[in-house]
Amino acid sequence: MTGVLDGLLVVEGSAFVAAPLGGMTLARLGADVIRFDDVRGGADHGRWPLGPDGSSLFWRGMNKGKRSIAVDLRRPEGRELVAALITAPGPDAGLFLTNFPATGALSYERLRARRDDLIMLTLTGNPDGSSAVDYTVNPATGLPLITGDGREPVNHALPAWDVAAGLTLAVGLLAAERHRARTGRGDHVTLSLADVAFATMADLGYLAQARLLGEIRPALGNDLYGAFGRDFTTRDGRRLIVVAITLKQWRSLVEATGIAEFLPTVEKALDVRLDDEGGRFTARDAVAALMAPWFARRTLAEAQAGLDAAGVCWGPYQSFTEAAATDPRLSTANPLFAEVEHPDLGPLTTPGSPLAFTGRERSDHLRAPLLGEHTDEILTGVLGLSPAEIGRLHDAGLVRATEARP
Amino acid sequence: MTGVLDGLLVVEGSAFVAAPLGGMTLARLGADVIRFDDVRGGADHGRWPLGPDGSSLFWRGMNKGKRSIAVDLRRPEGRELVAALITAPGPDAGLFLTNFPATGALSYERLRARRDDLIMLTLTGNPDGSSAVDYTVNPATGLPLITGDGREPVNHALPAWDVAAGLTLAVGLLAAERHRARTGRGDHVTLSLADVAFATMADLGYLAQARLLGEIRPALGNDLYGAFGRDFTTRDGRRLIVVAITLKQWRSLVEATGIAEFLPTVEKALDVRLDDEGGRFTARDAVAALMAPWFARRTLAEAQAGLDAAGVCWGPYQSFTEAAATDPRLSTANPLFAEVEHPDLGPLTTPGSPLAFTGRERSDHLRAPLLGEHTDEILTGVLGLSPAEIGRLHDAGLVRATEARP
Repeated sequence: MTGVLDGLLVVEGSAFVAAPLGGMTLARLGADVIRFDDVRGGADHGRWPLGPDGSSLFWRGMNKGKRSIAVDLRRPEGRELVAALITAPGPDAGLFLTNFPATGALSYERLRARRDDLIMLTLTGNPDGSSAVDYTVNPATGLPLITGDGREPVNHALPAWDVAAGLTLAVGLLAAERHRARTGRGDHVTLSLADVAFATMADLGYLAQARLLGEIRPALGNDLYGAFGRDFTTRDGRRLIVVAITLKQWRSLVEATGIAEFLPTVEKALDVRLDDEGGRFTARDAVAALMAPWFARRTLAEAQAGLDAAGVCWGPYQSFTEAAATDPRLSTANPLFAEVEHPDLGPLTTPGSPLAFTGRERSDHLRAPLLGEHTDEILTGVLGLSPAEIGRLHDAGLVRATEARP
Repeated sequence: MTGVLDGLLVVEGSAFVAAPLGGMTLARLGADVIRFDDVRGGADHGRWPLGPDGSSLFWRGMNKGKRSIAVDLRRPEGRELVAALITAPGPDAGLFLTNFPATGALSYERLRARRDDLIMLTLTGNPDGSSAVDYTVNPATGLPLITGDGREPVNHALPAWDVAAGLTLAVGLLAAERHRARTGRGDHVTLSLADVAFATMADLGYLAQARLLGEIRPALGNDLYGAFGRDFTTRDGRRLIVVAITLKQWRSLVEATGIAEFLPTVEKALDVRLDDEGGRFTARDAVAALMAPWFARRTLAEAQAGLDAAGVCWGPYQSFTEAAATDPRLSTANPLFAEVEHPDLGPLTTPGSPLAFTGRERSDHLRAPLLGEHTDEILTGVLGLSPAEIGRLHDAGLVRATEARP
């Protein structure tokens, strides 16, 4: 590997989406991320979807590029081994990312006593440390009530707050490590899923809008808030969305759909200016009604030709299956993806990092380890244990190693 | 400010959500992030929601903690000024984050000619550099077709891919800067919104599921995929979600709702094991039907008492207005938030970074600048221009400064 983070050693004690994504984000940039799990597998070891052999495709998705060590975490000697790993010496080590309860041997205080400049990132559900998951945080943000048509609350299918939290953890780790490299000081950084969600809602203007205007954003179906964005159906029954936030996007859309001559009437009737994004939002139903025939007369392919020629910002709705079969962005035609050989599943189309370092050879298309695949090499390489010592750990059932079948 | 990124100088040319969030994420950790805009305001200067004075609450939300310089970007001399800013000398400068078309004086090649170790991050819509926004990328992921009840595609109200892309940009910048500090080498890093979306879908297991099993995940309403997660309605008409992914969460839920005695019947009738997460998913309708009376007999407050006592993972649905009025996590009772004085709007409840550095005084509760608020101090402090030179730039209309009203 030749990633920009080569040499950085991060130990991860994690499960599910956010914390594993934080570590994987760093692993795909070249960091040596060691995920430790209980010898019986972590809480996410059976998370759906499952593959043909019953193993978790989810787990494989969220742990690509990491090394895996399997330790009996229920026994003090196992936790002691993990603590030694976390606090291993070296200027690029001593980084611990976790969403486990930080107690006992894995508490910040106990770990810091072993390595004073430790950087530890702890993810919790709520800011007070209590438990919450994406699916219980999101309903508290109000978003389900303004998703869809507003008749029933609708949850997002994407665990968006988990994704945001995972990436925020990666930011926090790199920021704290930069600071440590300059000052020698470690940090205990905490992050909660709820804080990620509520900070983002406030950043997007929801909180100021509520406080200053007493306003709540309404459920708008698939319409865009505050500008023009609307679904249309084509002659062949396909659905697409067009978006005109900027004036340039609006002019392209008007040109493509040929409705310019009707717009003065809309502006007069509704007392709006359509070169203003708020005017476009206010007049969206009238505009959409005038535009709809253009789409209804065309197939998706014909609409695409007209929209692309005018430079319209638009996109088709498609199922994930259709995207996987036909969208070049989701195939090895896109450098993001490569076929990666998996020891037991064969080749799988696998994404690397969405961050592309131009002029650098890609080395970020990596598979996930098997549980405990790197147990012995980590005990040797990071902790410096002898074959005899490692043998004793195996005999005691404290560690487990899995050999990848070729 | 005493953030961990103190000293880092990032120049940002941006609009809308992703790139501004990338810069803001770094600014809240202490980086000096200079956002440059055209003297007339950028493409997002009027983005809704608008405040009582007609100014964009969105813009204020996405640019907190940055310094603002306003330059005439339509004139070559203006772009030249920005290029000088981007390539200003110093080991902690020479970082440029943008979602603008990287052409002319602001192309990587031209900028790199001025500073060989430049780090530039360019965000595009599609991997081929073509334009796309969150609202046109998401329909291509298939998520709208499995959000809600599946009758109509439903877009998320949250620009989730924008948020993920912004945070990924912050990761990329810190990773590239770490590499430069160690090797002296700069980088041109590119990221597309579509790659963020498709990589995440693949990471979550969708792609392997489609390739290996030919399966598409169905629309599940608000149910959780692959385990037990379900909405219930309480006696006072409130709605909540309960989630049981782990065995511990499941046992808590069974205990709280008192349905243990019915479960052997469910297991027998449906031929599943409920201590397996997939079994809980398969049997979710039967389980929910047996559980519903417990919720229907209780008010939200009563349900809360019972669920919390048993340690159930759950959350209520609430509107954002209700959250802003009553949820302590969205108030200054949570250290994430503080009242921040705005020169023209008065005090506003404002989030800092969700990353909390324990043991460090918080200095991340920051307001957004006014457009051009720091023009003169940046020309002086970063470019070293004299008052006479700055006066000439003003006279020529090349820059604009806004004084914050006290």
